[in-house]
Amino acid sequence: MSSGLGKLLAPLKKHHGLKNSTDYLLSHGFIQQESSGVFDLLPLSTRIIQKINNIIRSELNAAGCVELELSNLVDPKLWIQSNRLRKDTEAEFIFTEKRKYMLAPTAEEQITNLMRNVSYKQLPLSFYQITRKFRNELRPRNGMLRTREFLMKDLYTFDLNEELAEQSYKRISEAYEKIYRRIGIPFLVADADSGDMGGTLSHEYHALHEVGEDKLVVCSNCTYTSNWESAIVKKDGQKYQTKDLNFAETDFSSLECHSCSSPVHAKSTIEIGHTFMLGTKYTEPMQAVVNSPAGNGIPLEMGCYGIGVSRLISALAEVHMDNSGIKWPVPVAPFSCAVVSKNSSDSKKVADMLVSNGIDAYYEDRTTQIGYGIRDAKEKGIPFTIVLGSRWSEQKVDILPRWASKVEDQTVSIDDLVKTIKGLSHL
Amino acid sequence: MSSGLGKLLAPLKKHHGLKNSTDYLLSHGFIQQESSGVFDLLPLSTRIIQKINNIIRSELNAAGCVELELSNLVDPKLWIQSNRLRKDTEAEFIFTEKRKYMLAPTAEEQITNLMRNVSYKQLPLSFYQITRKFRNELRPRNGMLRTREFLMKDLYTFDLNEELAEQSYKRISEAYEKIYRRIGIPFLVADADSGDMGGTLSHEYHALHEVGEDKLVVCSNCTYTSNWESAIVKKDGQKYQTKDLNFAETDFSSLECHSCSSPVHAKSTIEIGHTFMLGTKYTEPMQAVVNSPAGNGIPLEMGCYGIGVSRLISALAEVHMDNSGIKWPVPVAPFSCAVVSKNSSDSKKVADMLVSNGIDAYYEDRTTQIGYGIRDAKEKGIPFTIVLGSRWSEQKVDILPRWASKVEDQTVSIDDLVKTIKGLSHL
Repeated sequence: MSSGLGKLLAPLKKHHGLKNSTDYLLSHGFIQQESSGVFDLLPLSTRIIQKINNIIRSELNAAGCVELELSNLVDPKLWIQSNRLRKDTEAEFIFTEKRKYMLAPTAEEQITNLMRNVSYKQLPLSFYQITRKFRNELRPRNGMLRTREFLMKDLYTFDLNEELAEQSYKRISEAYEKIYRRIGIPFLVADADSGDMGGTLSHEYHALHEVGEDKLVVCSNCTYTSNWESAIVKKDGQKYQTKDLNFAETDFSSLECHSCSSPVHAKSTIEIGHTFMLGTKYTEPMQAVVNSPAGNGIPLEMGCYGIGVSRLISALAEVHMDNSGIKWPVPVAPFSCAVVSKNSSDSKKVADMLVSNGIDAYYEDRTTQIGYGIRDAKEKGIPFTIVLGSRWSEQKVDILPRWASKVEDQTVSIDDLVKTIKGLSHL
Repeated sequence: MSSGLGKLLAPLKKHHGLKNSTDYLLSHGFIQQESSGVFDLLPLSTRIIQKINNIIRSELNAAGCVELELSNLVDPKLWIQSNRLRKDTEAEFIFTEKRKYMLAPTAEEQITNLMRNVSYKQLPLSFYQITRKFRNELRPRNGMLRTREFLMKDLYTFDLNEELAEQSYKRISEAYEKIYRRIGIPFLVADADSGDMGGTLSHEYHALHEVGEDKLVVCSNCTYTSNWESAIVKKDGQKYQTKDLNFAETDFSSLECHSCSSPVHAKSTIEIGHTFMLGTKYTEPMQAVVNSPAGNGIPLEMGCYGIGVSRLISALAEVHMDNSGIKWPVPVAPFSCAVVSKNSSDSKKVADMLVSNGIDAYYEDRTTQIGYGIRDAKEKGIPFTIVLGSRWSEQKVDILPRWASKVEDQTVSIDDLVKTIKGLSHL
């Protein structure tokens, strides 16, 4: 059974002056703001999230990772053991009264705590969860990009030594690239600083975008890609760390790649993932150690890996936007097809037929003005709008592709609709 | 690919003196306690939860309900609008510092807030979410039965008038019965008090169990079933409300059903769901109103419906326990099959073969002592243990059924294993 849009909390408005992805997400009933930096995921974005989560789960499970769900209420004593409970933590994270609990912003301490009784024979171990996280951001902004409550996939690996930990790091990194490709977001992998998290090796995954608040330094010739904070460049033959330069005042035409001496560019990006080889930063103070043939009481080598799941909604919307609105990639679109006609019961029949053939579709039940329905579906970014228009009396429908940009509008017989849509979306 | 138990945080111990379901859940790596009333769901129970959630989703979607995800951080001003923010709320719920946020214990206010702009043409509307909830329980107890953080399915319906709201209530109640039957938990439906939630009609869903902290009054003849707080009985021809009687001092043999005058019994139970017709208790003060042909500014008729999802883990474990441990119903068991042998690579091959045929199986990789592996799988409640035993050299395996109690142990050829397991579990 297909859904009518009216049941999905999607308001029909004649939109004017929508400027950015957040405008579109709010106006079209994808998200609702509860308070500063706190959003509800309405039915349309809940569907997107479920599709993203399924992609993440299938790739991580294939890479040997195991899912669990750690609590959100965390006893601060674990953060005292790992030396992460700083004096300013109160400003950074939300605490409940009397500091009895903190709300988990990330789970290194909780998972390390669970590793205290494992045997070296169980290694390598890797666990992930897709849960809400909380951070008391001082300046929430850009829709779902910087929020106080968000959905995050966090993953933790544990190995016997550094060499094996590097193998785990490589395995997860390959899974990350598959995940982003399947989700349909173009990305760059950048060298990054381990920063506050500690550890020896770190990479960030970035979606290229002009409004992004992150900056990458990208070589025009070789593969060198680094975030602004950890990049090294050459200028007049001398090496500089870009963090020692002033971004706004930098003349990029004077900089060269420190590796191949080709010109470098600065790119604005949105961070969509982060991986760290943490070493023993958490396992040593928290005594997550194993006895093995190599010795007794060896602290586990740990890695941690994040994907900002709800943030991907804003990142995808922003990266794939054009003058007409959002454009969702087929694998994560809330629906593959919108069905629009003058008669919503006709639309329902066609949408039901699509759904029973494994294509998710909604029908427009809020307006019988075909033009409004088409424009609304376009702004929402639905990959294919099916219009029961002037040739519906001959059982022919128009397909207006929004995602497959090189594909022309076409008219097909209703009998060919399923096959045509499956072909267009490579189902 | 199948999983080895060693990767799933399931410890192998020789268990002695496990007394109740919580002992088993903790000892066998289903759950881990973080602090009083706060638990992690380890990989085994994460698998149970996902199966329960899939059953809930399929039945609610079939009943026309739509999924969304409301925030956990709630602005207390919404609770001021609905008059639910009482003086003692601070003791009941967890607040963040300076009362900027509260952690959602339930979401009537948030969903009603979203209903302020709907049209009467969209009705009936019904939305649900499966998210964590938080309650500052003074006395957490019985494993996952009474906790401070828990997973809950909450659902809200909105209708134009009371008659239509009753139709929605009936539709959801039917879905509830299907859900509990598919999950495999025996239940009773009892009349209940609307209590603090307000409203006109309320039912509770209870699993019968002697250690349950709830009490039901059940007629031995007719369908009358009510919780202790709202039951009416007859004694010497006169009607009494049981809440006016002292439970411990009551002589049940002197009580009669107020409806058919047959004897009544008191039963101990675990509450596993609750439904309310709320009327306009929230929609009127929060001004969730529609203009319709019947009039303007009509407050929506609301219903709310809960299922304690993580609580079901403890309820199922307790209800289906026997002297040997837990017994999971096949549809929600973390794995349908355990594969045990003297050689874990043989076990892995058989488990992989089961998985590739759509049967979820793990292999025992923590011990090569078949007896320990069998006992561990039995205590864990895995429906079928496959043993590569004395006749494995002839490619024959033993099936030890735990769930299907009337089925004898049997030995089958490896070629018949998939068909036999599918038959036994009615896949």
